[in-house]
Amino acid sequence: MEMEGKNVIYVGQKPVMSYCLAVLTALRGGNTEVSLLARGRAISKAVDVAEVVRNQFMKDLKVKNISIGTETLETEGGSSKNISNIEIVLAKG
Amino acid sequence: MEMEGKNVIYVGQKPVMSYCLAVLTALRGGNTEVSLLARGRAISKAVDVAEVVRNQFMKDLKVKNISIGTETLETEGGSSKNISNIEIVLAKG
Repeated sequence: MEMEGKNVIYVGQKPVMSYCLAVLTALRGGNTEVSLLARGRAISKAVDVAEVVRNQFMKDLKVKNISIGTETLETEGGSSKNISNIEIVLAKG
Repeated sequence: MEMEGKNVIYVGQKPVMSYCLAVLTALRGGNTEVSLLARGRAISKAVDVAEVVRNQFMKDLKVKNISIGTETLETEGGSSKNISNIEIVLAKG
């Protein structure tokens, strides 16, 4: 995932609207692009955030790219666990 | 979402491995492409299915396209509710 020079918002446990507000704030600061990153169960929420912002707040916002991947996390027991992630890049008209 | 002439697998409540098997079976029948469709919380699972198949079973499988959208569902009370969806198109090398 490319992250340099881009606004990155990590989607986790907060409500969908918190992340929508973060997207709107990021795009108000002169940036034309913002990336949503999420892993595991938060992936569904990242999609919700992208859709809610596009449908309800910024109709000219486009989904520029979506990519998926896998990360390996160490568990407390010392074993490793794979977890999926997603990056959704949103760009202004 | 385009669905004609493509293998479509709806990802829902079953375990990840059930859908991985469905993908492998679909691709064994001479098809070179398969679409995973999911909505709501199953979106995270659809990403898991794509990643597990690609990392563990078919290394030459590529993510050809990912698209997201919103559907409106009628609830029992007569009101409507928006739900996000995802389509992940996987294609053989």
